[in-house]
Amino acid sequence: MRGDIMGDDHYRVPGFKASAVAAGLKKDGSKDVALIFSEKISAAAGVFTRNKVKAAPVILSQDHIESGKARAIIVNAGNANACTGEKGMADARAMAALAADELGIDANEVIVGSTGVIGKPLDMGLIERAVTELVKNLSFEGIPEAAQAIMTTDTFTKLSRYEGIAGGQRYRIVGMAKGAGMIMPDMATMLGFLLTDIHVKSADLHRAVLSSVEKTFNRVTVDGDTSTNDMVIVLANGLASNSDLREEDVRGFEGGLRKVMGELARMIARDGEGASKLIEIRVRGAASPTDALNAARTVANSPLVKTAFYGRDANWGRIMAALGRSGIRMEPDRVDLWIDDIQIVSGGLGSGEEAEKRAEQRMANEAVTLKIDLHQGGSEEEVMTCDFTHDYVSINADYRT
Amino acid sequence: MRGDIMGDDHYRVPGFKASAVAAGLKKDGSKDVALIFSEKISAAAGVFTRNKVKAAPVILSQDHIESGKARAIIVNAGNANACTGEKGMADARAMAALAADELGIDANEVIVGSTGVIGKPLDMGLIERAVTELVKNLSFEGIPEAAQAIMTTDTFTKLSRYEGIAGGQRYRIVGMAKGAGMIMPDMATMLGFLLTDIHVKSADLHRAVLSSVEKTFNRVTVDGDTSTNDMVIVLANGLASNSDLREEDVRGFEGGLRKVMGELARMIARDGEGASKLIEIRVRGAASPTDALNAARTVANSPLVKTAFYGRDANWGRIMAALGRSGIRMEPDRVDLWIDDIQIVSGGLGSGEEAEKRAEQRMANEAVTLKIDLHQGGSEEEVMTCDFTHDYVSINADYRT
Repeated sequence: MRGDIMGDDHYRVPGFKASAVAAGLKKDGSKDVALIFSEKISAAAGVFTRNKVKAAPVILSQDHIESGKARAIIVNAGNANACTGEKGMADARAMAALAADELGIDANEVIVGSTGVIGKPLDMGLIERAVTELVKNLSFEGIPEAAQAIMTTDTFTKLSRYEGIAGGQRYRIVGMAKGAGMIMPDMATMLGFLLTDIHVKSADLHRAVLSSVEKTFNRVTVDGDTSTNDMVIVLANGLASNSDLREEDVRGFEGGLRKVMGELARMIARDGEGASKLIEIRVRGAASPTDALNAARTVANSPLVKTAFYGRDANWGRIMAALGRSGIRMEPDRVDLWIDDIQIVSGGLGSGEEAEKRAEQRMANEAVTLKIDLHQGGSEEEVMTCDFTHDYVSINADYRT
Repeated sequence: MRGDIMGDDHYRVPGFKASAVAAGLKKDGSKDVALIFSEKISAAAGVFTRNKVKAAPVILSQDHIESGKARAIIVNAGNANACTGEKGMADARAMAALAADELGIDANEVIVGSTGVIGKPLDMGLIERAVTELVKNLSFEGIPEAAQAIMTTDTFTKLSRYEGIAGGQRYRIVGMAKGAGMIMPDMATMLGFLLTDIHVKSADLHRAVLSSVEKTFNRVTVDGDTSTNDMVIVLANGLASNSDLREEDVRGFEGGLRKVMGELARMIARDGEGASKLIEIRVRGAASPTDALNAARTVANSPLVKTAFYGRDANWGRIMAALGRSGIRMEPDRVDLWIDDIQIVSGGLGSGEEAEKRAEQRMANEAVTLKIDLHQGGSEEEVMTCDFTHDYVSINADYRT
């Protein structure tokens, strides 16, 4: 069984089952509750939204993952169970308890995730009916179905996988994510669940997850909004039976996590609500890492830059203006800009209409890179975003109606 | 002559003449260069963009206003003369010199302003031809025409006036502004020129202008972008011949400035690119003035909140989420929200569908107020913004093409 051919086994990880059902939370009747189950107790690590308004399932799951162990993840889409007060907390607890009872495990071994409309009470009758079916349907081939069920405004399912070798054994990482809008570090309406059969200590897992999320999911922005519900959870069940990881094995595993999370993050940016193109913003020559990140994020979140990319307009003045207000150290007359490999600004001055025209041809592509050299130092950073389109406005003006 | 009836005299201030011509910088052939001239040397104060990428006319005018005196303002629309290097600085200097020569004054008594596309060299031949005509056409009734000439994507001319009494004499303040996008403190593509015949010391003028701008123009945001070219300039020619101002007179004058600037700022928010409605965001009960302002600005700049207002959707979850990421001190379960006088959130929980429906009826109006009570302290702030529409995207995707 090789993993690089598509098929039912492609996203399979030994020991992990999944399922999904249509509980009736999504208006279109599609699948909206997913369950992931690890046959064996797993090491678990998570990263959660830093928004001060945290949804009930976030608060509950932060508590449950504290132990460094988990066995199941139950997730619903269609309702965020956020800003729902004490009933919301009770509902999140009930979701964990219902799943635990049916699975015959402890409620605090269950992670709960929710995404969807904020401020509406969850219909627990629907969840209750769903749980029995979810447990019944659990299968080793269920991961793609679960990935589909957690989608909201996403236009495609987001899955990624990796195979590595550590401690003498082959292991797998499979990840799913959802997210298309309200995406902005640190953690937006973005859910990510990664499953691996590596054997890894909780502490090593925790460290590897934190640093991988920082460099991947936290480098994606769609609209600068962050959500109440984000979480990235990684479960490692140890079935690969590798020996204890040495430091270089941990680094290799972290590389794998970063690859899977990076691919999922790119998919999220590409699927940004209404987006017509993926934009990678690479800043180099910054005076500090903070400057590099601030520069990249300010440009990435500028509505004027994002609409210019939508309009295929190499309007570099807007990029300069965004850099100028980003608070970084800069000398305008040292800035160089490129669209892909075409230089459009050199020493703060435009490279002429010919260059802009060639750049605008590149901007018609589905993916385009904006490179910025500040010539202030040696720091660099990269942020992924998408353009700002008529469809973004349509999607978000009509979301609840 | 009473000032509260419209007419040629409505925006007249003794001693100030103005004119405008179509130099050919705007593609549609409308007026695009304006001149304001004070017959008498005036006390002058200005506030300029804090963007690190400053247009040549900003750098020049900051230098010229250093003396606290000025006699003329020349402004072009259609080309920002920003990111134009040494030629840009030479061009800004030439604009001042051309106007000064023709007016028979000193070049450093001339303030220069520009707005429009960034990064294109200014066609100085067009400016040169315009200056002769501008000086020839100067008239006391020219203010509205000048206000029209400085517009770019603005859909209406922005003028406001005030009459007060100070030091025993009646005085006037007349202001014009332009700005419709890229509006965000601190100073965006926003030009404001105010003329008054009050007699006021440079130092008092400077202080009054700074504090008035802070509470008015710096409380407007359209898209979070700030520009390379913003300036607010106030000229006071002293023709009202009032006696030296006492402290309470200065406060009265500052109140007048704030009224004129406040009206212009509201007009800018209402005219936000593609906007269908003006949104006033009032935060109270914040733990500090900084918290109040951060809360108001984060909500005002959230694309998700702005599209919800466009869609007449009382989607208070997005408001809560924006507050939660604004970095302020908050307890989600103490937050109250109102749309106009209709409470939609109480103690962090929704007030129900009936309230939301009534709020959504209000959101159909041209102006709507969002009130936020954080119940954390005694600080309050207000920010004006507009909704985010399909037209915003159209305007900014096609601006240069």
